[in-house]
Amino acid sequence: MKTKILLKEAEMPTHWYNVVADMPNPPTPPLGPDGQPVGPDALAAIFPNAIIEQEMSAERWIPIPEEVREALRLWRPSPLYRANRLEQALGTPAKIYFKNEAVSPAGSHKPNTAVAQAYYNKMEGIKRLTTETGAGQWGCSLALAGQLFDLEVEVYMVKVSYGQKPYRRSMMQTWGAKVFASPTDRTNAGRQILTAHPDSDGSLGIAISEAVELAAGRDDTNYALGSVLNHVLLHQTIIGEEAKKQLELVGDYPDMIFAPCGGGSNFGGIAFPFFADKAAGKAVQLVAVEPTSCPTLTKGVYAYDFGDAIGLTPLLKMYTLGHDFMPPGIHAGGLRYHGDSALVSQLHNEGLVDAWAVPQLETFEAGVLFAKTQGIVPAPESCHAIAAVIREAKRCTESGETKTLLFNLSGHGHFDMSSYDRYFAGELEDFDYPEAAIKESLAHLPKVG
Amino acid sequence: MKTKILLKEAEMPTHWYNVVADMPNPPTPPLGPDGQPVGPDALAAIFPNAIIEQEMSAERWIPIPEEVREALRLWRPSPLYRANRLEQALGTPAKIYFKNEAVSPAGSHKPNTAVAQAYYNKMEGIKRLTTETGAGQWGCSLALAGQLFDLEVEVYMVKVSYGQKPYRRSMMQTWGAKVFASPTDRTNAGRQILTAHPDSDGSLGIAISEAVELAAGRDDTNYALGSVLNHVLLHQTIIGEEAKKQLELVGDYPDMIFAPCGGGSNFGGIAFPFFADKAAGKAVQLVAVEPTSCPTLTKGVYAYDFGDAIGLTPLLKMYTLGHDFMPPGIHAGGLRYHGDSALVSQLHNEGLVDAWAVPQLETFEAGVLFAKTQGIVPAPESCHAIAAVIREAKRCTESGETKTLLFNLSGHGHFDMSSYDRYFAGELEDFDYPEAAIKESLAHLPKVG
Repeated sequence: MKTKILLKEAEMPTHWYNVVADMPNPPTPPLGPDGQPVGPDALAAIFPNAIIEQEMSAERWIPIPEEVREALRLWRPSPLYRANRLEQALGTPAKIYFKNEAVSPAGSHKPNTAVAQAYYNKMEGIKRLTTETGAGQWGCSLALAGQLFDLEVEVYMVKVSYGQKPYRRSMMQTWGAKVFASPTDRTNAGRQILTAHPDSDGSLGIAISEAVELAAGRDDTNYALGSVLNHVLLHQTIIGEEAKKQLELVGDYPDMIFAPCGGGSNFGGIAFPFFADKAAGKAVQLVAVEPTSCPTLTKGVYAYDFGDAIGLTPLLKMYTLGHDFMPPGIHAGGLRYHGDSALVSQLHNEGLVDAWAVPQLETFEAGVLFAKTQGIVPAPESCHAIAAVIREAKRCTESGETKTLLFNLSGHGHFDMSSYDRYFAGELEDFDYPEAAIKESLAHLPKVG
Repeated sequence: MKTKILLKEAEMPTHWYNVVADMPNPPTPPLGPDGQPVGPDALAAIFPNAIIEQEMSAERWIPIPEEVREALRLWRPSPLYRANRLEQALGTPAKIYFKNEAVSPAGSHKPNTAVAQAYYNKMEGIKRLTTETGAGQWGCSLALAGQLFDLEVEVYMVKVSYGQKPYRRSMMQTWGAKVFASPTDRTNAGRQILTAHPDSDGSLGIAISEAVELAAGRDDTNYALGSVLNHVLLHQTIIGEEAKKQLELVGDYPDMIFAPCGGGSNFGGIAFPFFADKAAGKAVQLVAVEPTSCPTLTKGVYAYDFGDAIGLTPLLKMYTLGHDFMPPGIHAGGLRYHGDSALVSQLHNEGLVDAWAVPQLETFEAGVLFAKTQGIVPAPESCHAIAAVIREAKRCTESGETKTLLFNLSGHGHFDMSSYDRYFAGELEDFDYPEAAIKESLAHLPKVG
């Protein structure tokens, strides 16, 4: 039986798919502090024009520049797998496919957008990109992309992670990036924090502030973001486009598509190209999978809120748990986000995208079964999609349905083995639904209009 | 320009290539303690019959069982890459190709033989495999293979590595293996060591003793080795066979082939299938690359010696630095071996295989250039082949030769980032050629015949 479905390099998509073109309603605009829609000018201090155009675009197909395709060919097209052995272990009549995005040099889907962002910045004469990173997945991806397009990359890495996750830091340095433990004394934001809290462990919110401040203050420097925004999701649609072609090669089409959902680029990347068919009437269920401890889509409110933790960004209309909600310390760091992509949120609000929440222990149990059957050790984020697929496959076993299930294996777990260690040692827990904390943070939602 | 050359699953080789059939002289036999050739019976306590037959076989083509091919399809055929960006960075007229064996779930070429060994043991009713591991590459590969064929796997991991390399241990456990810090109190060998040295850090020699003792003493248990022996090299020839097919697809053929060489399975795996052409008169240079600090082929003697450090194994005729030679602590752990495959050694002795030695700092410099140009962060072992290829590519720049160079990227460096860290911090060194230590250990060579 066929295990992998491959595309030739010549079959790699030539355009990204923009879901905005097929949404039943126009996307909600980001708002400035004055409650008015943010125009392109406000973004020009930190983003190149090409990216700003993509952020605002309603064109269905946006061409992928040949230089970006050339860089993506270092690992793309990525293989689509039929998970034969997982199916057998589950005894399910369902067919399970997964797209393997772990094959990128950085080990996740994130370089798909990092490469595109680096290219557009290079084309507009930018010399340097700044960004923030927590555990380091995004920082690695931008370091790689900067190296490929000869841009300097400065990564502001949350200080506690800088100490605890040294190997992703080494990887960024191998690709030539400068990595700073944030808060630093290089920015006003960092210095303010250090004055008040000399021993600060840092946070993603502080690191964003530092990266944005430096990009805004230097003409030759821009900022790059790894999820949430429309252009990031756009660049990730190459995943779903490839998957669709690969399924066509074996005469199949998914009944349900699953992906982990933190900021939304993982989910949007695989699901949006199938949304085009759904909008045209085809039956396909799109399931965003999130942690029960950070249940943005399943328990949040649909409202305007800040994208960052401390209120520096424009306001986005999205499902949110409140921008100052601090999620419990689950090991899927990429899913510990209070908000979500505005596009994913809007489609969920309109009933076109489903959301499931799974608890931490179930995700690791699923990840271990996946590793034992399919070999690949998945990232904790990816384990969320696997857990959801296993739930559905078991349901099919009971009902006898022969559904076709597709999920995005967004990354490998090579830098997350300490989480597996803790799982095996029985040290991981399922956090209670943080109802009180969410209620508290939702009380701080900004007032709009 | 094409980056990757892929084979379809249906194009995966159906047979392993046995270099013995094309060697100008028959292979030298392993000898027992009595100086007489070791027969199949002596090996039957720890190996299945099918493996013993392969170890002794002179058949040119040995069929790969369908069950093994099915397991290999989890990651094979592996991609062949044209290293366009590395070529550009070097400004070389040489064409550089590499086979990417880092795509296996365990991250190296080692599972190619682990899967085959697990299968043959399963077929002969074995329930459990034992093995030793240092840093964990081989232990991971056997853990994965045992899981795929429903065999228990016990890994005796050198105690100092067990503590220092926890993530490869976690990976083995994720695949269901039992991992013990060796020396243990589970074996006579371990107990003897612990009695004499309660704080022993362990060694690969001790771990081998434990694994072999347990396999020899239990009917349902066998032992598996990750390199050196003929059957291990045989199972790795799928690498070179695939590479040959892939180069044919682009109308190319290598002038020179490079691979790191520790026990020899990495090198034999990619080079032997091309040896068939060389034996038939074709000009192709096969280069085994080793560390200057453990220069087995370049500075050792060709003599009968033990395969392990403490003299438990049969004697193999090979290049050796003396079985009790303790190599300096370079970071390419897989190349810290006093001896070499008997097949590789014999071909080197006959002038049919070349050997180059490269110092540690040059290998990391090469690895970083490779990561910056091609994206993939290579394992320290693989960096040896990259360093040699870069040397040759630079020579081509000077001479204007348009040679075609092929190397084996045997593994990724995701679990070796601490070595890169030390390299960037300037903490790595080039060891002097350990002349006195080698002279000393060569004085302890066993007397034969």
